[in-house]
Amino acid sequence: MAQPRRIDVVLDSVRRLLRIGATANLFNLLQKQHPADLAAVFGELQERDRKAAFAVVVERSPKLAMESAAELGPEMAAQLLADRPAEEVAKLIQEIPSDDAAALVDYLPEELSTAVLELMRQKESGQVGNLLEFPEKTAGRIMNPNVFALNEDLTVAEGITQLQASRDVEMVFYLYIVDSRRHLVGVTSLRRLLLVSPETPLKRIMTPDLISVRVDTDQEEAARLVASYNLLAIPVVDEENKLIGVITVDDVIDVIKDEATEDIYRLAGVTSDERVFTPPGESLTKRLPWLAVNLVTAFIAASVVSLFEQTIDQVVALAVFMPIVAGMGGNAGTQTLTVIVRGIALGELNWGNTRKALLKEALVGLGNGLVLGTLGALIVWLMKGNPVLGGVLGMAMVINMFIGATAGTLIPLGLRAMKVDPALASSVFITTFTDVAGFASFLGLATVFLKYLKTG
Amino acid sequence: MAQPRRIDVVLDSVRRLLRIGATANLFNLLQKQHPADLAAVFGELQERDRKAAFAVVVERSPKLAMESAAELGPEMAAQLLADRPAEEVAKLIQEIPSDDAAALVDYLPEELSTAVLELMRQKESGQVGNLLEFPEKTAGRIMNPNVFALNEDLTVAEGITQLQASRDVEMVFYLYIVDSRRHLVGVTSLRRLLLVSPETPLKRIMTPDLISVRVDTDQEEAARLVASYNLLAIPVVDEENKLIGVITVDDVIDVIKDEATEDIYRLAGVTSDERVFTPPGESLTKRLPWLAVNLVTAFIAASVVSLFEQTIDQVVALAVFMPIVAGMGGNAGTQTLTVIVRGIALGELNWGNTRKALLKEALVGLGNGLVLGTLGALIVWLMKGNPVLGGVLGMAMVINMFIGATAGTLIPLGLRAMKVDPALASSVFITTFTDVAGFASFLGLATVFLKYLKTG
Repeated sequence: MAQPRRIDVVLDSVRRLLRIGATANLFNLLQKQHPADLAAVFGELQERDRKAAFAVVVERSPKLAMESAAELGPEMAAQLLADRPAEEVAKLIQEIPSDDAAALVDYLPEELSTAVLELMRQKESGQVGNLLEFPEKTAGRIMNPNVFALNEDLTVAEGITQLQASRDVEMVFYLYIVDSRRHLVGVTSLRRLLLVSPETPLKRIMTPDLISVRVDTDQEEAARLVASYNLLAIPVVDEENKLIGVITVDDVIDVIKDEATEDIYRLAGVTSDERVFTPPGESLTKRLPWLAVNLVTAFIAASVVSLFEQTIDQVVALAVFMPIVAGMGGNAGTQTLTVIVRGIALGELNWGNTRKALLKEALVGLGNGLVLGTLGALIVWLMKGNPVLGGVLGMAMVINMFIGATAGTLIPLGLRAMKVDPALASSVFITTFTDVAGFASFLGLATVFLKYLKTG
Repeated sequence: MAQPRRIDVVLDSVRRLLRIGATANLFNLLQKQHPADLAAVFGELQERDRKAAFAVVVERSPKLAMESAAELGPEMAAQLLADRPAEEVAKLIQEIPSDDAAALVDYLPEELSTAVLELMRQKESGQVGNLLEFPEKTAGRIMNPNVFALNEDLTVAEGITQLQASRDVEMVFYLYIVDSRRHLVGVTSLRRLLLVSPETPLKRIMTPDLISVRVDTDQEEAARLVASYNLLAIPVVDEENKLIGVITVDDVIDVIKDEATEDIYRLAGVTSDERVFTPPGESLTKRLPWLAVNLVTAFIAASVVSLFEQTIDQVVALAVFMPIVAGMGGNAGTQTLTVIVRGIALGELNWGNTRKALLKEALVGLGNGLVLGTLGALIVWLMKGNPVLGGVLGMAMVINMFIGATAGTLIPLGLRAMKVDPALASSVFITTFTDVAGFASFLGLATVFLKYLKTG
């Protein structure tokens, strides 16, 4: 993921121009950039330089500055605005779509955000405030309330005239059709308008059967609908089916990325709202609970080992090799777990094919266990000169990698059946399982064959 | 991610109608479904039922059958076609966009796929064959070659007439403008056509400065461009800048999902082309190398333990608790690693802010180590009645969780600096590191304080 070189060139110039204070030249350079590129430049700068460069742009082109700030994401954008007076922030924020603005305001320092919302309310541009009233992660929170719609009683010609007059609406993918009380009744497209005669009533060319989401629908469900029906946007309606907003595909892409991050994070026991630069104290308290659960399970595994203290006391080499058995089972289990969890998330796994998946994973675990167990047995035999010790390790590895693969399938499926996110708790369970099974099988077998080991 | 109930109702009916062989009723039910919903139904059925239901639809509505097959993904779609004669497959495949068709053909049994491509070539509809000639994971492979473009010398009125005539092109997001030799020279939109007088030349209203990708561009880069510039489609050009295809945002969503899967998989040592139902033998050989690397590193960690065999021989309880120290360091390291790897993938981490990230992670590791190390020390003290043993465990945990967090930051950043995908190898390194450091610190400290431990 190397950055394209162009950005490095721009970055060098930006740093140089900042150093010599050539703000006019700096603005000249920056205003030529696409907002997304400008955001990339801002992102690469150190915080001080970023604020200075942003100040140069915001003074001369508030629109460009805010558009690129919005591309930076709400957290960093809020940082750039945090030192400015509420009046200015309230004004600047109007340069960006209200869903982006709402997210940004959410990240401003408490006091500033209240003041900004208050100011915006006074000016009756309450859209941002309204968006924030919808619960997080719902369609209402990510929709753009500025949605273009045509009345069903218009003709095509009248519709085109209205469209021409509405310069504000940036991208029109679909033309939503509403009745006189703004109930969503259909959809048509610009292209279809061009294919019929101008006096055709919109009602005649609209598709009445369209997919929409309620304002309180989970954002993930909205994203799933857009992705699976290959839509460019999905209309958002209230409980009376009145059109109140639209979610566009670019917002859906953000949702999909966030959901993927959540899955990756959960497998490692990190909460989904953590980012690289979440303050240390906050990160610490967020990660602590998962680590604490792991500490408890680690003691459970340790108590299994302590059952065999006498055996270890007689053959200390067992202590050397027991982590190998536990670890390899954990690795095999984690591979299985990852494939299964992702398969559930992508909808590839369902009740009909569970048994097939289990059989497959058990076979793979057993197969890899046999290959690597044999290898491990040979290494131990060579290291310690005791074939029985090698054999015990090999057998325990086969058992534990088989258990790891089986548990790696059953645990996430079981969690899903209990309506728990399989990504959330599976990895703790799997390591506990493979640790306990690994120690128990290895030390148990060692106890059985103890007399052959002591001679080693 | 519970399925909506509607599908379960449909599924029940489908199974019932299949059982009683009421194919006419079955088709009646199935034809009312959107292709995406029909695909969901197919996906939930067992393989035999799926083939039977697909056969019913394909006989009566090849278009609907193939569209829903395409939604199922190339692998399952190929399974549905694998038993049919090449002539039929070649014909059916023309019902779906050629990028989907190309992916499907790729999954057919070798012999059938050759025959199908041969048949399609004879009919001079070589688009699918052509797409397969581009390397995997490039823009050329996922583009749709059926791209609508207008000549720059046309007027707006002539452009609209051409558009009206081209019923084939399903979704027109952008109107690409080409010169007489099909070089891409600009872009405009349907909406802009409506805002100017009909005799305006297209050349006058087009934006000449447009973002495109070359046919050999990495699909990930194409997806990045679409996502960061909020595009609905991106044109694909050859080395002479001639327009040869278009990648639409729905394909980009698929790429983004695949890349997320790849990241999740790589962190667990699973290759990115594995899916839940990859045949067991193939999965086994794909997972084996990573497990083998882990076996080697496990023996490295074991050899550290073996350095302290004498110490363990004197205090067997050390064998009981040493996995806790190693494991907790691994857990803390994995949390850090995940945040850093995802931060790199999402572009939040760059060279400017590396030091800040390292400092933060070191602090978090140290903090969690102090909290949980103290807790662990108390538990061991209570269990074994030896405060020094508890203290040794606590100190080792602090050290190892600090090391885990530090290594979890430095290893992925180091890999990136060496142009290796940080997700690929980081987790092996991190567990090796924390195992070695955990065993060494715990057993090392135990050796130092040995005389206080033996009395315990």
